[in-house]
Amino acid sequence: MTADPRLARLSLNQRTTRRWSVAEAVGGCLRAGIPAIGLWREPVAELGAAATARLVADAGLRVSSLCRGGFLTAADDAGRAAALADNRRAIDEAATLGAACLVLVVGGLPPGSRDLAGARRRVADALVELAPYAGERGVRLALEPLHPMYCADRAVLSTLGQALDLAEAFPVEQVGVVVDTFHVWWDPDVWRQIARAGARIASFQVCDFLTPLPADVLLGRGMMGDGHIDFPPLRRAVEAAGYTGDIEVEIFNAEVWATDPDRVLATMTARYVDRVLAD
Amino acid sequence: MTADPRLARLSLNQRTTRRWSVAEAVGGCLRAGIPAIGLWREPVAELGAAATARLVADAGLRVSSLCRGGFLTAADDAGRAAALADNRRAIDEAATLGAACLVLVVGGLPPGSRDLAGARRRVADALVELAPYAGERGVRLALEPLHPMYCADRAVLSTLGQALDLAEAFPVEQVGVVVDTFHVWWDPDVWRQIARAGARIASFQVCDFLTPLPADVLLGRGMMGDGHIDFPPLRRAVEAAGYTGDIEVEIFNAEVWATDPDRVLATMTARYVDRVLAD
Repeated sequence: MTADPRLARLSLNQRTTRRWSVAEAVGGCLRAGIPAIGLWREPVAELGAAATARLVADAGLRVSSLCRGGFLTAADDAGRAAALADNRRAIDEAATLGAACLVLVVGGLPPGSRDLAGARRRVADALVELAPYAGERGVRLALEPLHPMYCADRAVLSTLGQALDLAEAFPVEQVGVVVDTFHVWWDPDVWRQIARAGARIASFQVCDFLTPLPADVLLGRGMMGDGHIDFPPLRRAVEAAGYTGDIEVEIFNAEVWATDPDRVLATMTARYVDRVLAD
Repeated sequence: MTADPRLARLSLNQRTTRRWSVAEAVGGCLRAGIPAIGLWREPVAELGAAATARLVADAGLRVSSLCRGGFLTAADDAGRAAALADNRRAIDEAATLGAACLVLVVGGLPPGSRDLAGARRRVADALVELAPYAGERGVRLALEPLHPMYCADRAVLSTLGQALDLAEAFPVEQVGVVVDTFHVWWDPDVWRQIARAGARIASFQVCDFLTPLPADVLLGRGMMGDGHIDFPPLRRAVEAAGYTGDIEVEIFNAEVWATDPDRVLATMTARYVDRVLAD
């Protein structure tokens, strides 16, 4: 097929087509004219990182991200050591895959803990260990602030400003940030923080914010146009900050997951053009 | 009964004991030794504002707040006029009740709208109309930033900093802010903003943040101690900012609502002492 120039920066985050293996997702991208893919560690592990890297390279796709490392808030030594070891493995995998970044979801409060400041401190401490390791392997860590509704149980990193405060302690090529529309669209400070982020922006992810939120609030991520987010101003702000990388569509949604993945990609490419690129 | 000095600043937000009428809630406060009450307009309307004011005064209770005005984001002239008229009525009721403040939940995006900046502008515009009206009647408006998960459908006011940016355009006695632990506990900037708020703090509300969030995310507010919030640092920060007013317990929770309200008050007073006052 002839490549559609409007899709030149579009990436499929693999979780959007959750039922597909890596090979199936790569095939889907080729059929849909999508030139990049965001991989997840679990399906990559099924095939192996090296085999995945060959498969993706042979298909001519870019790897816009590897999801995900993180979960760095354990308060006990064993939990902390296990998290660091797992993140080093994730960094190695990202290096093998030639991923543009390794996305980090930093983790929530440890069970029973109410020490939010302590959990946030431990994330900063872990980065001191992980950033040089990533740098030596040419991997860029991408700190992802998650919507504040996930602060307790998934990510104590809650705003782009907070992510930048953390990232700026490290070289820009070692630690960047993710701008995910679902997580930041509500933030009255988001415009200032995107401008501040500049070259720290390692990944730009899009999906919509749905209401009412589903019973599992992790699955409130919708197809662009199905929710409340006005995408073009956010895309333009990220571009004005200097980001020229891929735009990854990452949707966790029971209805999307129940739909034939090729149909999901057809909707996704159409909505990307209409809702994200449109001015 | 002898008043317990530890409860001297405790207030029952009436919604915590939702099945009770105003008269029943006043009786419950007297039995539990709670010296203040946060009233809601709907139960007040059943009895009438003047009769409610007499009932509460005869019982010797303070009215820590009236909930609530707001919903100021309508984009059409008719919707906007109706909202202003309703808020003027709410201000009149707050004056009749001698409430320490009228809590404003500002409203979400109008149906089908994705213009978040526009909705936020209309809130600011409405305050220009309402603040002097409130000031002439001795009523203080209290802008309540709501947790960002409610940005789309309930309140485009999402952080304490944003609330202060709005409030500071008006005299401090006309427009203050609400600090509600559920809504602000996640905010990495909350300590700085509470200090900045100072005399703008019109209300301090407490309840816990539960996970997993229930299917109706409005009902994720739990009894203090049942969730993830560390209350004493927030209480001390609010006090250090100069707030000496009532501490209102406002819980929206299906299980709490299903419990005998006198038992709810017994748990609430015990948890208040153990979880909010404790250092």
